[in-house]
Amino acid sequence: MTQTTLILSLPVWIESFLNRRKAGCHSPESRMELVIALGIENVKRKTGGPFAAAVFNSKTGKIISAGVNRVVPCSCSIAHAEMMALGLAQQSLNTFTLSAEGIPELELVTSTEPCAMCLGAIPWAGIKRVICGATDADARAAGFDEGVKPADWVNHLSQLGIEVRTSVCRDDATRLLKEYSESGLPIYNGHIPLPAPD
Amino acid sequence: MTQTTLILSLPVWIESFLNRRKAGCHSPESRMELVIALGIENVKRKTGGPFAAAVFNSKTGKIISAGVNRVVPCSCSIAHAEMMALGLAQQSLNTFTLSAEGIPELELVTSTEPCAMCLGAIPWAGIKRVICGATDADARAAGFDEGVKPADWVNHLSQLGIEVRTSVCRDDATRLLKEYSESGLPIYNGHIPLPAPD
Repeated sequence: MTQTTLILSLPVWIESFLNRRKAGCHSPESRMELVIALGIENVKRKTGGPFAAAVFNSKTGKIISAGVNRVVPCSCSIAHAEMMALGLAQQSLNTFTLSAEGIPELELVTSTEPCAMCLGAIPWAGIKRVICGATDADARAAGFDEGVKPADWVNHLSQLGIEVRTSVCRDDATRLLKEYSESGLPIYNGHIPLPAPD
Repeated sequence: MTQTTLILSLPVWIESFLNRRKAGCHSPESRMELVIALGIENVKRKTGGPFAAAVFNSKTGKIISAGVNRVVPCSCSIAHAEMMALGLAQQSLNTFTLSAEGIPELELVTSTEPCAMCLGAIPWAGIKRVICGATDADARAAGFDEGVKPADWVNHLSQLGIEVRTSVCRDDATRLLKEYSESGLPIYNGHIPLPAPD
């Protein structure tokens, strides 16, 4: 018999963490600060890698779903922060596309620009705005592999009607990556990184 | 309270379907035929889109995990066939990378060449061989959007030590897409497709 259900769970501390921060986040920067705090907590509690994301209601600033990197604890390389946040937003709103009628305007806030997989996932998810902290270059400088992405990925998303804002709270977001990297904690991605496309 | 567990399940018929086909599949073609049969069954039973995949032990031909497109039934745009098969293989083998020590040589067999998201997921998954049926062009011709992929994606994977074989049982795999498309069943991906990169 083969396994037929894939279960990807956030760490148990997430619920109380979010309960303490119930107020809406009314600026991109305050949303990013909450996301970076999730990433810091994920590393501190040893529940996954230094990446976090969340889906917010663009108007009210209310958090719809959160995600942290759960690759190692969940034994699943799909469990990137953005994938967790997007998938959880969809399941909690009972829709396979966040562009469905009746769904409020939402945005994905991610502590690091999406890797190739998460970038590919964004158009399918139906999200119409993406806000990023650390850049691809910051992630690569800290030793993380982002995969093969089109150099003009922001433009590709824009052509699909997806607005991207980069480098929001970039310094704080990059510090999360660097501190993890410098701590000697394992960077699980053991592939030989390709040079970033130019 | 936000949802904290993402659950992606295969249809209930999968288990008995696979139990009836317990013998190892000893050629790429026989593996692809099994995968295409999964896709046909998924459409016939109305449990998802016309895409299927599986992870096999390369030497014995034993199936490790199966996947079918579950986007609509699971309310999750991540639930592509390849993502299901890769994630389920990892969780059933208790490893976030299928290249881990002690794991036998495995291969991903997919009825259609991977979309941008699944392509990005392949290097992270640690799988070292990918066998594809219908091509990107076949999928686009049938009305499906594959996303923005590097034109030379086979070469990119090859540089990472991932062997790709394309067009295995291509006609049968393409028929699955075309019949779905011509049946008038919904193609959920409502994005304006970009032209395929050249």
